Formats: sequence, structure tokens, C-alpha cells
Amino acid sequence: MPVGTAGTVKGMTQAQLEELGVQILLANTYHLYLRPGHEIIREVGGLHRFMGWPRPILTDSGGFQVMSLKSLGRVTEDGVWFKSHLDGSSHFLSPERAVEVQLALGADIIMALDECVEYPSSHEAIHRAVKLTGRWAGRAKRYYEGQGAGDWGLGTGGKPSAISSQPSASETQASEQSPIGNQQSAIPASCPQSPAPALFGIVQGGVDRDLRRESAEGLLELDFEGYAVGGLSVGEPKAEMYEVAEYTAKLLPRNRPRYLMGVGTPEDLVECVARGIDMFDCVMPTRNARNGCVFTSQGKVIIKNTKYAQDESPLDLACECPVCGRYSRSYIRHLLVAGEMLGAILTTQHNLHFYIDRMRKIRQSLLFGAFAEFHSRVRAEP
Amino acid sequence: MPVGTAGTVKGMTQAQLEELGVQILLANTYHLYLRPGHEIIREVGGLHRFMGWPRPILTDSGGFQVMSLKSLGRVTEDGVWFKSHLDGSSHFLSPERAVEVQLALGADIIMALDECVEYPSSHEAIHRAVKLTGRWAGRAKRYYEGQGAGDWGLGTGGKPSAISSQPSASETQASEQSPIGNQQSAIPASCPQSPAPALFGIVQGGVDRDLRRESAEGLLELDFEGYAVGGLSVGEPKAEMYEVAEYTAKLLPRNRPRYLMGVGTPEDLVECVARGIDMFDCVMPTRNARNGCVFTSQGKVIIKNTKYAQDESPLDLACECPVCGRYSRSYIRHLLVAGEMLGAILTTQHNLHFYIDRMRKIRQSLLFGAFAEFHSRVRAEP
Repeated sequence: MPVGTAGTVKGMTQAQLEELGVQILLANTYHLYLRPGHEIIREVGGLHRFMGWPRPILTDSGGFQVMSLKSLGRVTEDGVWFKSHLDGSSHFLSPERAVEVQLALGADIIMALDECVEYPSSHEAIHRAVKLTGRWAGRAKRYYEGQGAGDWGLGTGGKPSAISSQPSASETQASEQSPIGNQQSAIPASCPQSPAPALFGIVQGGVDRDLRRESAEGLLELDFEGYAVGGLSVGEPKAEMYEVAEYTAKLLPRNRPRYLMGVGTPEDLVECVARGIDMFDCVMPTRNARNGCVFTSQGKVIIKNTKYAQDESPLDLACECPVCGRYSRSYIRHLLVAGEMLGAILTTQHNLHFYIDRMRKIRQSLLFGAFAEFHSRVRAEP
Repeated sequence: MPVGTAGTVKGMTQAQLEELGVQILLANTYHLYLRPGHEIIREVGGLHRFMGWPRPILTDSGGFQVMSLKSLGRVTEDGVWFKSHLDGSSHFLSPERAVEVQLALGADIIMALDECVEYPSSHEAIHRAVKLTGRWAGRAKRYYEGQGAGDWGLGTGGKPSAISSQPSASETQASEQSPIGNQQSAIPASCPQSPAPALFGIVQGGVDRDLRRESAEGLLELDFEGYAVGGLSVGEPKAEMYEVAEYTAKLLPRNRPRYLMGVGTPEDLVECVARGIDMFDCVMPTRNARNGCVFTSQGKVIIKNTKYAQDESPLDLACECPVCGRYSRSYIRHLLVAGEMLGAILTTQHNLHFYIDRMRKIRQSLLFGAFAEFHSRVRAEP
């Protein structure tokens, strides 16, 4: 999932994301809650309509942002107090409130509020976070189920009044095939009625296997529609991350999506699929792009480097993206050096293509029983 | 002509410009000379290939930028001394050098170096600029013709060695039909050999009709392939601008393009076509877009205004652009308020569509003998 923090994947139009084959976006509850505000997004018909994006959206719970802006936040049993990074105003996010905000946004997958601790943390701190995350997950689930049953699609613009507890994957996918494109109204009639969102729980536990097991078992009792592995890729060694991801994935049901949050490099995608992960989100392709770091079949390229000033080759000769079909390294370097928007636009488009293509190839290799081969091929890459 | 100062129309991909129906771009010699440097652009095959833009390009002479950064420049009989706005380094631009740089860039239309005076200026200052511009135009023309004859297309990457003095419009247009799109190489083989560029002279003379006549007559003797009206839209009253544009256009041959530099509003386009102008360039659609000012059939809209926070309608209900087919005012306002790139991207795309569509309608009305009707319809608009 490309990350669309404030309801936009920085520098990309929604049409470009569709052309890249992006199937699902992540948006940040914390940012949208603060600006423009979830009530405004609900009033204009939900995030899909607001963004002009008919395909699935996952919203995080807001917890990670609150944690990562630590000095601005305070965790209590009830929830999290935090100060807005925009204007310093005080806000409170409880497990119930996080679900409420995400329902207002109208995402397809919503996340239970969790407490993510930094690396390294004491066993006691991690254990406390695991227990709190478990209690919050229960409260999120009960609140989510308490929202009743009925119709609350995008078309109503009103409050959600119905959640079926088991939206099927095919329902969620339906919105993807809906034609939207270039119509005369900014309020597309074809924007589909959204099915009830799926609620995912988040496993915590740092790099402690026992705590990971305790966290996972607590969540499994609550029976979520999908499970995320949180609290990784926060500074622990890579080998540790792989091992804990694998250990945790094995604790989770095979027939529910397993989502590794905030990961990772193109290699991580393959390594972690090999370890049982199904879904990822990461700012790496987009943030690196804006900083002039592009992913290629030959490894990372720091395109601002002087040696590319007259390099007429594309970012990656082996790449089939629209950027590599048209622009040279020389031009893209010039744009980035000159601070022109198009520099970030083109590197973002290329990097997202690289990531989406990586996942496409992973799916293809799985489908044709060739994943092991693909895996070893990627390992041999520069 | 949308303005692509540094070899990019800010925020737009070349594919988006093509989709908008942009037929020709303006790029700034001054900016490209300083960064990345015209030699680099020549080495990588010229500006068309550098930018991945196969359609026509006009480069200005650099004179206007030097004038507008006045404190950094000094005008002599030989040319202009100026300091780079990037690093303060000293540079010299003569009429010959301006042609040389533009030939290196490989534009389709190049401009003779002129001296543009501010408004208001004394009769003496304007007269001096008219005479200097005339002498410089002669030097530019002689240098241009002295570049000899032969082959110097984009494909060679070398110095231009041939200029036919009368490239036909159809030759210039040829590059427009060349398919380039999404190919596997960033150095498209189909990027056409460029015909020799057309050299335009620039009429100066402020708002003084006698000086405009003197300037035009001097240039006509040199027989340029097109003529620009410079030194307008620099602060003079609008009525004055219209009158001088009309007066000057009538001095120029009907069978050569007449180009009004740096103009203007959507109304200006219609008013000035009515007065004999064929070509325009202006940063207004793109710069205003980035500042959140969009052009609509109902007049200008300042989209950051709070009243649009929940406005679900598109920027312009009467607009057929991709932005108005997909996004609401509410969303675009949010993007601009949040400082997200997509805000500027979408408003730019919309505004350029508005301008390009305006010119398309002007051409259509001329073609079908309905320009007077179109003209009065535009005058009645809000």
C-alpha cells in the first residue's frame, strides 16, 4: 500500500496511481482527523469520494503517529492524549474514538488502536503495551460491533449505521472494478456503496517471542478480520525483524490477511512474503523518491549525484514504467537539483511502479508455484 | 504557450501536457543557460530530448529575465552583463550569444535579444532601447544566418551547422505528430530531426506609437520569420496595452506570426486576438494555480477560501478537464491548505485546460467565421 498520509500520495494524481496498478492505499487517521477533520470528510461522502479514489483504502488507527510524536502525547488506560502538530490543540483518542473516526472516513479496512513501543524497550514496558493493546482491541471490537446493522454507504453521506461483521473479500474488491475516470461530476454516481469495513487487530510484543504469542492469542480470541504485525521496523536489526515477523505470522490464521506495518525495502517485501506476510505499507518508495533515491533493478540510485548530469539513460533500463519510457537521468537530476515539482513526481511514479511491480511479480510467482525461484533470484540481485 | 521556465511546466508531466492539447511550450533561455547549462542540454541531444517533449518549443532570448533582475544586470552596446540569481557568478549575454545558446537548446522558435524597459520610462529611455533592440536584432540575424547550412538535428548531439532561412510551418509541425509516448528508451528514436528554428524579432517602444512604428520598421527590414510585441503588460493600463498591441500588430505582416509576450488573462487572449495577435505566453495559469487561484466559466475562484471547505462541486461545473471530472473543491482546498503537491498539480492542470480550451475555441470560431460572436460572448462573462 502506497501511503497517502493526508488523503493524497504525495505528488501523484489518482489517475496515475490507477495506471500504476495500485489496488489499495493507506491513509492516516491522525492527519485526516486533524485536517480537514473527519466530520468534513463524512459530510462530503467519505474518503473515497473526497479523494476521488474508488479503490480500497486502509486507515491506520492514529496510534503510531501519536507515539512517534511522543513529546506531544500521553497514554492512559482510556486512550491517548495528544497535541496537534499543526496548532498545539489538545485531542483525545480512545479505541472507540479511533474506530468512530475511521468509520466516518469510510475506509475499507480500519485498524484497532494500539500502543507501539520504541526499540529497545524494557520487557516490562513491552508487556504493559501488549496488555493495553489487548484491552484496547477488545474495546475497539465491541464499539465496532455496537454500531449496529444496516446501510451506510458512501452514497448517503450520513453516519454509518450498519456493519456486517464479515464483509467478503469480493465485496471489498468490487469497488476496484467500478469505472470512475473522467466524468462530468466531481461526485461520481458510480462511486460504489461501500460494504462494511474490515477491522484488523494489531499484534505487539517487540522482539520478545513470548510477548508476541501472548499478544496474538489475545487478539485471536476477539476474532478480527485481519491481523497486523505492529512494532517492527522501529530500529531492531533486520534479521530480528525477519525472525519476529515469521514467528508472529505463524501464530495468525492462514485464512486472514497478515499485514506487516511500516515495512519496507523491496527485498523486505520478498523476504517477508516468504515468512507469511500478505500486506505491507511503507513511505519508503515515496519519501525516498522525494529525496532523490530511486529503486532500480541494479540497486538504489542517488540521482542527484553529479555523475548523472549527462546520463542519457533512464532511471532503470529494465523498467517498464512511464517515467523510464520517456525521461533520462540527466533530466530528472536537473529537476531535483532545481527543486522542480516534476522531479519528485517522476521519481515517485517510478518508485511506486517498482514496488507495485515487485508485489505483482510475487503474486504471479506464487500463483504459478515459482515463488522459491523468484525469492532466490531477488536475493542474488545487487 | 504554457511557461516551462526550467524545462518543466511546474507540476505537470509531459504526458499531462499532451493530454491537455498543449501544442507548444515556452522555456527560458536564462534559466536553462544557468542550470543545467545549455552545453549539457546540447550534449544530451537538445531540449526536446532532454525534456521528453517532442512538440514545438519556443525559447525566449533571456533578455527579459536579465532586465527583471535589474539590480543584477548592466546593459552595454555589446550586450548584457548579469549576475546569476543562483550563485552570483557573472555572465555576459550578447545578441550572438543568445542565438548560440538557443541553437544549443534546439528550440523551434528562438528570439532575438532585446532590451525591455519598465513602465513608465522616459521617451529618451524608450527610444534608446528601441534603437539598441534594433541593432541587436540585426546582429542576431547575421549571426543566425552565419551558422551556415547542413544537418544539425537532435540526433547528432553536436553543434548546429545548418540553418535554412525559411523553415516552413509544416516542417515545424512535423514533430508534433511524432509518436513518442511510453517507450522503452529514454532517448526515443522517434524524436524527429528538428528543422532549423525560426528566429523572431521583438518590437519595443513602450506605449509610444511613434517608437513602436520605428521599432517595427527596423525589424521588418531584417525580415524575421515572426515578430513579437515585447515591453507590454509591464504595468501600463489595460486599455493602453490593448491599443498598443493593436497598433503594433497592424504594423506587422499578416503572413508572419505575431506574438504578444507575457500576456495575459483569459479575457486578454480574446481581446488581443481581436486586435491581430496570434501567439501568447504567460505564467498566469500556472502561477495563479499554485497560489490557489483558478479560472472558471464563472470567473476566478480563490479555492483556499473557507467557504469551499465542504463544497462538493468541481472547480467549474462547465469544465471538461480531468480535474473537474474527478475532484471536488473541498478536496482541492484541503490539499492546498495542507501544502500537498497534488493541490498545485490539480489547479495547474485545470487552469492550463482553461487557457488551452480558450485558444481552441478562438481558433474554432475563427475557422467557422464566428469569432465576433465568440468575442461578445466572452465580454458578457462574469
